Amino acid sequence: MTIVGQQAPEWEAAAYVKGENKTVSSKDYEGQWYVLYWYPADFTFICPTEIREFEELQEDFADDGVAVIGCSTDSFFSHKNWFEDGETFEEGITHPVLADTNHSVSKAFGVYEEENGIAFRATVVVNPEGRIKSLSVNDIDRDEAGVGRSAKEVLRTVQALQSGGLCGAEWEPGAEFVETD
Amino acid sequence: MTIVGQQAPEWEAAAYVKGENKTVSSKDYEGQWYVLYWYPADFTFICPTEIREFEELQEDFADDGVAVIGCSTDSFFSHKNWFEDGETFEEGITHPVLADTNHSVSKAFGVYEEENGIAFRATVVVNPEGRIKSLSVNDIDRDEAGVGRSAKEVLRTVQALQSGGLCGAEWEPGAEFVETD
Amino acid sequence: MTIVGQQAPEWEAAAYVKGENKTVSSKDYEGQWYVLYWYPADFTFICPTEIREFEELQEDFADDGVAVIGCSTDSFFSHKNWFEDGETFEEGITHPVLADTNHSVSKAFGVYEEENGIAFRATVVVNPEGRIKSLSVNDIDRDEAGVGRSAKEVLRTVQALQSGGLCGAEWEPGAEFVETD
Amino acid sequence: MTIVGQQAPEWEAAAYVKGENKTVSSKDYEGQWYVLYWYPADFTFICPTEIREFEELQEDFADDGVAVIGCSTDSFFSHKNWFEDGETFEEGITHPVLADTNHSVSKAFGVYEEENGIAFRATVVVNPEGRIKSLSVNDIDRDEAGVGRSAKEVLRTVQALQSGGLCGAEWEPGAEFVETD
Amino acid sequence: MTIVGQQAPEWEAAAYVKGENKTVSSKDYEGQWYVLYWYPADFTFICPTEIREFEELQEDFADDGVAVIGCSTDSFFSHKNWFEDGETFEEGITHPVLADTNHSVSKAFGVYEEENGIAFRATVVVNPEGRIKSLSVNDIDRDEAGVGRSAKEVLRTVQALQSGGLCGAEWEPGAEFVETD
Amino acid sequence: MTIVGQQAPEWEAAAYVKGENKTVSSKDYEGQWYVLYWYPADFTFICPTEIREFEELQEDFADDGVAVIGCSTDSFFSHKNWFEDGETFEEGITHPVLADTNHSVSKAFGVYEEENGIAFRATVVVNPEGRIKSLSVNDIDRDEAGVGRSAKEVLRTVQALQSGGLCGAEWEPGAEFVETD
Amino acid sequence: MTIVGQQAPEWEAAAYVKGENKTVSSKDYEGQWYVLYWYPADFTFICPTEIREFEELQEDFADDGVAVIGCSTDSFFSHKNWFEDGETFEEGITHPVLADTNHSVSKAFGVYEEENGIAFRATVVVNPEGRIKSLSVNDIDRDEAGVGRSAKEVLRTVQALQSGGLCGAEWEPGAEFVETD
Amino acid sequence: MTIVGQQAPEWEAAAYVKGENKTVSSKDYEGQWYVLYWYPADFTFICPTEIREFEELQEDFADDGVAVIGCSTDSFFSHKNWFEDGETFEEGITHPVLADTNHSVSKAFGVYEEENGIAFRATVVVNPEGRIKSLSVNDIDRDEAGVGRSAKEVLRTVQALQSGGLCGAEWEPGAEFVETD
Amino acid sequence: MTIVGQQAPEWEAAAYVKGENKTVSSKDYEGQWYVLYWYPADFTFICPTEIREFEELQEDFADDGVAVIGCSTDSFFSHKNWFEDGETFEEGITHPVLADTNHSVSKAFGVYEEENGIAFRATVVVNPEGRIKSLSVNDIDRDEAGVGRSAKEVLRTVQALQSGGLCGAEWEPGAEFVETD
Amino acid sequence: MTIVGQQAPEWEAAAYVKGENKTVSSKDYEGQWYVLYWYPADFTFICPTEIREFEELQEDFADDGVAVIGCSTDSFFSHKNWFEDGETFEEGITHPVLADTNHSVSKAFGVYEEENGIAFRATVVVNPEGRIKSLSVNDIDRDEAGVGRSAKEVLRTVQALQSGGLCGAEWEPGAEFVETD
Repeated sequence: MTIVGQQAPEWEAAAYVKGENKTVSSKDYEGQWYVLYWYPADFTFICPTEIREFEELQEDFADDGVAVIGCSTDSFFSHKNWFEDGETFEEGITHPVLADTNHSVSKAFGVYEEENGIAFRATVVVNPEGRIKSLSVNDIDRDEAGVGRSAKEVLRTVQALQSGGLCGAEWEPGAEFVETD
Repeated sequence: MTIVGQQAPEWEAAAYVKGENKTVSSKDYEGQWYVLYWYPADFTFICPTEIREFEELQEDFADDGVAVIGCSTDSFFSHKNWFEDGETFEEGITHPVLADTNHSVSKAFGVYEEENGIAFRATVVVNPEGRIKSLSVNDIDRDEAGVGRSAKEVLRTVQALQSGGLCGAEWEPGAEFVETD
Repeated sequence: MTIVGQQAPEWEAAAYVKGENKTVSSKDYEGQWYVLYWYPADFTFICPTEIREFEELQEDFADDGVAVIGCSTDSFFSHKNWFEDGETFEEGITHPVLADTNHSVSKAFGVYEEENGIAFRATVVVNPEGRIKSLSVNDIDRDEAGVGRSAKEVLRTVQALQSGGLCGAEWEPGAEFVETD
Repeated sequence: MTIVGQQAPEWEAAAYVKGENKTVSSKDYEGQWYVLYWYPADFTFICPTEIREFEELQEDFADDGVAVIGCSTDSFFSHKNWFEDGETFEEGITHPVLADTNHSVSKAFGVYEEENGIAFRATVVVNPEGRIKSLSVNDIDRDEAGVGRSAKEVLRTVQALQSGGLCGAEWEPGAEFVETD
Repeated sequence: MTIVGQQAPEWEAAAYVKGENKTVSSKDYEGQWYVLYWYPADFTFICPTEIREFEELQEDFADDGVAVIGCSTDSFFSHKNWFEDGETFEEGITHPVLADTNHSVSKAFGVYEEENGIAFRATVVVNPEGRIKSLSVNDIDRDEAGVGRSAKEVLRTVQALQSGGLCGAEWEPGAEFVETD
Repeated sequence: MTIVGQQAPEWEAAAYVKGENKTVSSKDYEGQWYVLYWYPADFTFICPTEIREFEELQEDFADDGVAVIGCSTDSFFSHKNWFEDGETFEEGITHPVLADTNHSVSKAFGVYEEENGIAFRATVVVNPEGRIKSLSVNDIDRDEAGVGRSAKEVLRTVQALQSGGLCGAEWEPGAEFVETD
Repeated sequence: MTIVGQQAPEWEAAAYVKGENKTVSSKDYEGQWYVLYWYPADFTFICPTEIREFEELQEDFADDGVAVIGCSTDSFFSHKNWFEDGETFEEGITHPVLADTNHSVSKAFGVYEEENGIAFRATVVVNPEGRIKSLSVNDIDRDEAGVGRSAKEVLRTVQALQSGGLCGAEWEPGAEFVETD
Repeated sequence: MTIVGQQAPEWEAAAYVKGENKTVSSKDYEGQWYVLYWYPADFTFICPTEIREFEELQEDFADDGVAVIGCSTDSFFSHKNWFEDGETFEEGITHPVLADTNHSVSKAFGVYEEENGIAFRATVVVNPEGRIKSLSVNDIDRDEAGVGRSAKEVLRTVQALQSGGLCGAEWEPGAEFVETD
Repeated sequence: MTIVGQQAPEWEAAAYVKGENKTVSSKDYEGQWYVLYWYPADFTFICPTEIREFEELQEDFADDGVAVIGCSTDSFFSHKNWFEDGETFEEGITHPVLADTNHSVSKAFGVYEEENGIAFRATVVVNPEGRIKSLSVNDIDRDEAGVGRSAKEVLRTVQALQSGGLCGAEWEPGAEFVETD
Repeated sequence: MTIVGQQAPEWEAAAYVKGENKTVSSKDYEGQWYVLYWYPADFTFICPTEIREFEELQEDFADDGVAVIGCSTDSFFSHKNWFEDGETFEEGITHPVLADTNHSVSKAFGVYEEENGIAFRATVVVNPEGRIKSLSVNDIDRDEAGVGRSAKEVLRTVQALQSGGLCGAEWEPGAEFVETD
């Protein structure tokens, strides 16, 4: 059964936090909205387009009190070398990216791909009560084809979830709610 | 574990098909891309905004060879009375909508909500080999708040999946692929 | 083994109560006789003849202190639209009708039909001690044939059960009891 | 779960058949409608009113090709002495009455009452395919109160089941069927 | 393994006690010798010869402080009609006869015959400590042949058991005991 | 449950047969009535009175084609020394007496007493089809009191079983059968 | 695994003790060396040669504080008649001989032979702490051949066990111990 | 239960055979009497007295067609160094001695002592049919005391087993057999 | 139990092979000696000293027909970026290095460290029959201390294993073997 | 999974300690570094080269506070005779060597070879917290070929583990640590 509507699992992992190797966990985000997104591997090609987009929208998320956290199964050492190579991410990465080397975070949310030992391109939205409000998962890139996700759609979904009203399809902040009659 | 990357389960249900009560099943879509989306209940308020949007984009999906199928746990008789009330859906509904009264389809895809006996707002994309390529699930409307999804984002995702290239974040048909070097 | 002679299970469900969406449960009927009847689906054809008959006899049941409750596996929203369409039930429906969308009430009484995901045409009579005193079940309408039940026979049965005497076959209130010698 | 809609179990028992001790079984009724009714005990007071009524309506049932069979947990010898005492049943009993001394028939249909070792007042209707189409069960007489059933309502139910049309509540042979539009 | 030498099971059943329907149980015989005998069915032919013999010897048993109790799987109502028909038992029956309709007493002593749902012709002797001191069982009458037992031999056995001495084969009260040297 | 009415178990044991140590088994008695009786122990005091009585009635049993077999848990060597001591059994013993040292025969018929490792005073009658028609068991002698059985009652029972008619209580060969009407 | 080196099981049995029937148990030998020997059956031919030899050496065992106990699966009554027949054992038997009729002692020490229901020719030596220090078992006499044991070798073994020194092969009391250097 | 009277287990082990490291197994002794004896450890003090005695009596055993095999849990290398040190065994050892380093032979015969990882002082006699005819086990040397066994008693036992007659206690070849009457 | 002496498990993984992403498996090394060594993570500090040493000794291993394979739980993309950064490994890496992202190879050899999701510093030597001949494992670097292994000792061990003689401690190719006498 | 990184099991065994038979256990080494090494068997040929080398380096280990313990599955008596034969180990052996006769120590560390009942050539290093920091195992000598290990490499490994720094491949005490940047 889907994990949506359930309490998010507790998680903990080493993470790249502005250059440092720090332990980050679900406890650090208690009482707060957060978005956790996974990408398959460091040093690949679609992933950085997604990571950069989340990095750029980070401020918009923050305006709504939403934390953004990345995650892959690579180690801290791998993260550090990629993020700081001075080319792929010109401005660097300022939001935390988990190093889920033992796969525990990916498995806890059910987005671990057994065969290749990596995570799916997945995103979850967790509310301040710790409940998973939204989940999306795209298959990993088989036969060299892959699909990056839209961080903007994630932002729209969180904003609608926070609005407390009935948001119709394609609702954007500022639009009217659906009336119940 | 997520169902993404797995073979879609076989399913069969009664369905509202252009006014008729017909049995529809996964067999009818073998060898074809299809989108299957769920909504919680007939005669509610966010749901029709979503259903109408899928109805309107149906032709665009069809241009890419993608079938669109709706689903709720209401009966055929309920579907018929709602879709044909002449008000909610002025043009009527021409894509099939499953009547998953025994919950078998919703449970097979893991998107059944036990407590209320309805389906989550969920969407899956299935490819011609029967593999689930994408899944998104939003929590049901608790405390009278709910979030309609974006059918356009679904369309973009399917098109990217079909493109056979590396599609960066926010990629749209016509845009360039990500280069691997 | 039959559930007759056993304590009725505890149950709770959303219900259509004079136009409102309310939670109704077995607790609301403690210490009281009640009749609970199921019908397969809203917007069908035999069902309304039964519902109307129970609606009309409701006062007679009430004279004997007996509550009448309907039930189908449709949602509150479906109930509301059917009962208030102004045609099928000209006077509306004033007795509560459960929306057993998660099938828990139907399963608890053993009258859920797995294949079609609906309830059988069933009726139970429960006494003030919570004991099931009578049960009748008709098969659902297969191949387009079905049989509505007689609410009057239900009324006669309850009255006989309440009389505290030995009621022969076809006994009606006012008739003599069977003598034991 | 209810036995309605299921195949009737196979059964076999000694029976009082017009004064003789014969073995009767479900095989004798293959391809035929039949009504099987239970009563708690020979030599009691409500039971004969029911037995007499089924005896009297036997011809009407036969007109519709419906066999009628009685059953209690008393022995053939008990049946014979009661039916032929010359007082209780002036005309005698001409339909078979099973002597379910080992309780196998009552248990197979789930209408055996463990505590007292007798059968509930129950009735089943079985169609020519051997499927149970209707079941009714009244609790046994606790604290000296009991309720005889209506053989006429049983007759009406069988006739409606045989009609092949949609029979509304209280439908009687000759009445119109419910229209589906 | 045989039940002889074991504590008799606790038992309770409705019984015909001098015309009344009373509950009788092992508790009523605590601290006392009693003989419990079973016969297959009321209204049969060997059984009354046995019942009459126990009725006639009842006083002799009573002289030695031994209670006599009969038992069959027929109901109280059946017992009453047979014992009081004025022909079979001219003097009536004054010792209690159990109505073991739920077969619990017969099964507890292991003398229930599954196929026919009746008890074997069995007799047990229970001493004041509740221990089963003697058991005899004859097969039920198959193919219309049967063997009544000898109540006098039962009486002799009880008397010998009570004597506290070593009683040789065919010992009768008043005869000498066997010497151990 | 009692073994009466069941097929007798197959059995085999060493036996004292007119002074010789022979293996005797149920196969030797196929197609024949036989009585098998147990006594607790060689060299005791009640037992010889019973053994002598069976020895004396052996001819009467034989006249009716009934074999008589004794059994205890003592060895052949013990049997031989007791039966041939010239005092206890002046005429010797000419019917076979089993040496059930491994307790297999006693256990197979359920008449083994675990605590003392001996057999109860038990008797079974087996018919030519190998069915156990009668069983009687007396408790072993606790606290130095014991009860010998009546071989004559055994003989009467076998004769009645063989008569093929309905034998009332205390019936003796030559007496009339019970009439069934 | 062998029982040697283990605590001897607790045991209890009836026994022939100088003509009397007494209960003897392992408790009676707490804190003391004892030899327990088994023989197959009373009234046989090798056994008395062994029993006599243990009887004769009893005093020597007693000098070393060692009790001697015999055991067979025969009853006390059998023991008494054999030991006191005036021929086999001219002087009678003064050491206790167990009557292991329920086989519990033989089974506890693992020397029971299932097929014939008797004990093997076995001997155990138990020390004051209740530990089994020595075990010997000879197969029972199959095909009329058997081997009596040497009570003298048992005596030598016990004496060596008691000496507290290292006793070489064939050591006898008074001989030197083996030196460890 | 004891292994006496059972088929000996199949076994195989490395062995010291006149200075060589060879694999020896039960297959090598098929159809032949053999004695297998265990001792706790090489380089200890009682053991050599036993080994020497078996070595010396080897010819006598051979005269009767009996093979003699020793066994300890030491390795071949240990055996070789001990047997050939020129002091302990002046003449060397010419019968095979197993090196049961993996304990499989000792465990198969149930003579392995878990705590110390060595074998008990045990002896078995196996006949040409592979049946274990005799077993003796002495506890290992705890607290520095131990008891060597008598190889001569083993020889006497084998000879008696081979004689085919009834050998009384202390019987020696040439002595008379016990008469059975 | 240790895996040494067992058949090596079959394994397969993506690998960095001279710049390319190739699948490498145990099948590629059938019939050949190979050394498989693990290191904890790319982009760390002890690891490169070990990798460089194996790279340098690769020719010596090859001279003896021994393949050398590295392994960590990092991805191919991570390997490629590290090995080709132009600084850490000036000459590049020409022996295959597995990308055991799904941990299957590490787990198969039992050298996976659960807590940190990485492999221990481990080395195995596998012979041409696929048998594991040698294993060494050092704990991972806890509290920032770690120990690199000696590739030269690995080389010496393989050479000794290949020599087919008895190699004493510290044996080097060319040295004499140990004599067995 | 490997035992490296785990707490070492508790162990206890008899041991040769400078000529004496003493019980040695893991408790004796609490809070201390120790090396435990196994060899297959006393009186063999590679083993003494290893034992001598550990004996010689014992002082170097001691300088670093590291205890050295040997182990084989031979008994104390075997150890004593080998170590003190005056030839193989001219200076004798002064570090403790366990006599793991019941195989418990070898099994606890997983280095027991079932087929031959001996230990592999294995070495573990345990730190003062009782954690296993290093393990190496070489296969036993099959087909007469074997490989002795290098005690010097063990010494280097322990010294590196103790240094608390990052020791590159082939690091020796006094060399520089690897820098982390």
